Amino acid sequence: MGIGNIFKAFQPKDKVFFVLFEKVAETLVSMSKEFHESLLEFDINDDTMLKDMSDYEHKLDDLTHEIFVQLGENFITPFDREDISTLASGLDDIADFMYASAKYIYLYKTPLDPSYTEFSLLIYKSCVEIENAIKNMKDFKNPREVKESCIKINSFENIADDVLSQATVKLFETQDAINIIKIKSVLEYLETVTDKAEDVANTIENIIIKYA
Amino acid sequence: MGIGNIFKAFQPKDKVFFVLFEKVAETLVSMSKEFHESLLEFDINDDTMLKDMSDYEHKLDDLTHEIFVQLGENFITPFDREDISTLASGLDDIADFMYASAKYIYLYKTPLDPSYTEFSLLIYKSCVEIENAIKNMKDFKNPREVKESCIKINSFENIADDVLSQATVKLFETQDAINIIKIKSVLEYLETVTDKAEDVANTIENIIIKYA
Amino acid sequence: MGIGNIFKAFQPKDKVFFVLFEKVAETLVSMSKEFHESLLEFDINDDTMLKDMSDYEHKLDDLTHEIFVQLGENFITPFDREDISTLASGLDDIADFMYASAKYIYLYKTPLDPSYTEFSLLIYKSCVEIENAIKNMKDFKNPREVKESCIKINSFENIADDVLSQATVKLFETQDAINIIKIKSVLEYLETVTDKAEDVANTIENIIIKYA
Repeated sequence: MGIGNIFKAFQPKDKVFFVLFEKVAETLVSMSKEFHESLLEFDINDDTMLKDMSDYEHKLDDLTHEIFVQLGENFITPFDREDISTLASGLDDIADFMYASAKYIYLYKTPLDPSYTEFSLLIYKSCVEIENAIKNMKDFKNPREVKESCIKINSFENIADDVLSQATVKLFETQDAINIIKIKSVLEYLETVTDKAEDVANTIENIIIKYA
Repeated sequence: MGIGNIFKAFQPKDKVFFVLFEKVAETLVSMSKEFHESLLEFDINDDTMLKDMSDYEHKLDDLTHEIFVQLGENFITPFDREDISTLASGLDDIADFMYASAKYIYLYKTPLDPSYTEFSLLIYKSCVEIENAIKNMKDFKNPREVKESCIKINSFENIADDVLSQATVKLFETQDAINIIKIKSVLEYLETVTDKAEDVANTIENIIIKYA
Repeated sequence: MGIGNIFKAFQPKDKVFFVLFEKVAETLVSMSKEFHESLLEFDINDDTMLKDMSDYEHKLDDLTHEIFVQLGENFITPFDREDISTLASGLDDIADFMYASAKYIYLYKTPLDPSYTEFSLLIYKSCVEIENAIKNMKDFKNPREVKESCIKINSFENIADDVLSQATVKLFETQDAINIIKIKSVLEYLETVTDKAEDVANTIENIIIKYA
């Protein structure tokens, strides 16, 4: 329908964007998987996870940069340039806030709040659905599957909202102001990761609405 | 001037967007009116307001979703697709942060800061001006009235900035760290509602600039 | 390459945008220079700096508004209307958060954290590079210089991230909860200024990619 069909004709030439977005999504799945698994058996004295999160974040920076370079070199793109740019930045934001969460968990050296792994599981599940959505975006052939992934990501963000408010209320029961400031700050970074995943889902849905 | 005239010819077909945006604006006015009135005679043991805020927030989610569905089904839109999408998301953000403010007021069970009702009045007034602006956007016939509403919304946000800084300074005089963290957090949610209203005003002004 | 060449033909008519963006950039350089120099020899009892920051912020509001007025009056623009709008708002955000940082430094009356001047130097350097980038954007003749400025701004934001995390960790060593809340809040405003500068750099790079 509409402009989509015109662009579809050009797709073989611009597979590069789908290839890059798939790489980004796969990297986010690996990053969030390690983030979640490390938090499940966390050891503050082993900073392997933090180093790996930093490496993943750099790798995603490079992939994002490559998408922008390709955007400069290709006049024809599989969907609106603005959408490619918004999607690339949105995916990069997920990595940035996941890395920031990890960084402050290590820096603050506070005991892990039980909600951390609830968040990391929601983050991992969101990244898996982002990967599904991006794979199904290819050729705009599976709009229903893409939409279903986006709905799931939105629901994960809603759950994360509740995890945040419940964890915050429990946290204040400790009456330890300094600890509260530290953990509240980490909780907010973690919740922001799911916000950024929701932004990506909304961007993907907007693209699908236009071209599918 | 310019592209606007071309689009105006198509308007009868896409009245649906104005109808939906008016519904959104009306709902925001009702939501903010109840929010303000409940805070004026607040009772922590009566959570009617919180439940109503949640209902309004869901209703606005549904309306926002409907706008995106219509965006997918209509090739011709009364103004840029990007602007419709930005406006719809911006209006939804107002509801989200108003609901979040209400939620944390109930969760924290702290006595109400006197600034809460100053904020809620500014939020209500901003929503009334958003409704005015959207009604006057129809057919792009009253650009002056739209602009005046946008200027008012911007001035409410400036006032909210001052309310925030003055309330924050007073709050710190209490020297109660835990209470400060809680109320500062609510103040920031409340101030963000006016930021989101300002974003909407800027989006509306951009649209008017293009088409009026 | 591509659309760029078509637009280049129209440039003489729309120099107004470059003139305005250069004025904005120059004002940001002056603002950040005074901000940094005042923090180097800070006196809480002399609020000249705060008043000047407020004046600069108003001046930048006016210039931003003028860009949007011109956007309404000019059908032909030197680059995408959306990009002009995003760039203008992004530059205005830098001024807003710089002013907010100054405001809370005065309001909280806390002793200056040593990191404040590290941030203000990074902010000043970022504004200088923004001015360079905008001057070199004119006629899209020096894309390499523009890119180099953008890379520098990105690196300043990375450094600011580290300044924030190191300053935050040191701050918590004081064990003074109320002081921690205040200074952490100022540190976050300061770091946000560099985030906004990075957003501007990314917007500029996107424009250059399209037209250079």
